[in-house]
Amino acid sequence: MARVSMEGAGEYFHHYPRVAIIITVHAGDRDNAMAAAWHCPLSFTPPLYGVAISPKRFTHDLIVEAGEFGINFVPVEKAELIASVGGSSGREVDKFHRFDIAREKPLKTSAPLLRDAYASYECKLVEHKTYGDHVWFVGEVVASHFDEDVFTPEQTLDLERVAPALYLGAELYTMPAKDAIRHLDRKVYGKR
Amino acid sequence: MARVSMEGAGEYFHHYPRVAIIITVHAGDRDNAMAAAWHCPLSFTPPLYGVAISPKRFTHDLIVEAGEFGINFVPVEKAELIASVGGSSGREVDKFHRFDIAREKPLKTSAPLLRDAYASYECKLVEHKTYGDHVWFVGEVVASHFDEDVFTPEQTLDLERVAPALYLGAELYTMPAKDAIRHLDRKVYGKR
Repeated sequence: MARVSMEGAGEYFHHYPRVAIIITVHAGDRDNAMAAAWHCPLSFTPPLYGVAISPKRFTHDLIVEAGEFGINFVPVEKAELIASVGGSSGREVDKFHRFDIAREKPLKTSAPLLRDAYASYECKLVEHKTYGDHVWFVGEVVASHFDEDVFTPEQTLDLERVAPALYLGAELYTMPAKDAIRHLDRKVYGKR
Repeated sequence: MARVSMEGAGEYFHHYPRVAIIITVHAGDRDNAMAAAWHCPLSFTPPLYGVAISPKRFTHDLIVEAGEFGINFVPVEKAELIASVGGSSGREVDKFHRFDIAREKPLKTSAPLLRDAYASYECKLVEHKTYGDHVWFVGEVVASHFDEDVFTPEQTLDLERVAPALYLGAELYTMPAKDAIRHLDRKVYGKR
């Protein structure tokens, strides 16, 4: 192992891969969508979800205005859509029109949901807070939508039926390996 | 597609897989380690990283006491170690001793780093804040350590050389597929 130790975080790509998602928002009379990889669940009860968005992004302003947003998990076969919404700005183009994005109706918010998503969350904004060069948006998941065919009885993703889009950084995408799944019960290993 | 729409977040497993990490901390005269999957980068400048930890965890108390912590990315071949530290409590056992965990010396903090990790961050606690049933710890990455052999010249993970541990929920682990990588340049797709 060629171990490097340095002050600071360097290129800061070590934490990838991460599931790439599409954030959606409706504000005023317009819908917008952006790509994000810096996102995380924060609590089960209530269900809270966080996403880091640069304040330079148009979506930042729209979420502040709307007070709600959608989180959409799309399969890797649709990774081109992630790259498309990630490489364009809603200030210049109507992304839903340009990229012919099909919508599903939300249940509890105004956030447009993606028909191509295998799961979506509708979030009510709880707070937003600046951390360094990004703003951390925390939403309560007030409604969820998912394709029950792609989840196992234990509610985990069935990788035989769906391939999430994993972002590696540097415009590279892959998926989880479906032939390498191992069951390692913490209750057993914790007693070793 | 058998689409289900419901209020709330349901089982809240839709957002997996996530890279499983090992959080380390030194407080008083002891070291501890725990497993975590709810973690996220928050900012490039300064480099900030967040992790959600239940206040019931011993590590929660130790990080508050120490004011610093380590984040360790271990390969899927060591996923048993993740399950082991995830299934035991530092209140009852010295995990470093019990699971024979090899340490590397930190550069800027007291946090023990894992020799088995292909990358580690040393974090100084910036703040911690309760969101629902978890506490969100935000740290500034003051030092980083990584095996430069497992990163490409673009600083992304070289999946031919390292397999990160992806947690699917329900005690299931897999790795990213190394034969399914696609390059989708947002600058190109954003102009479609």
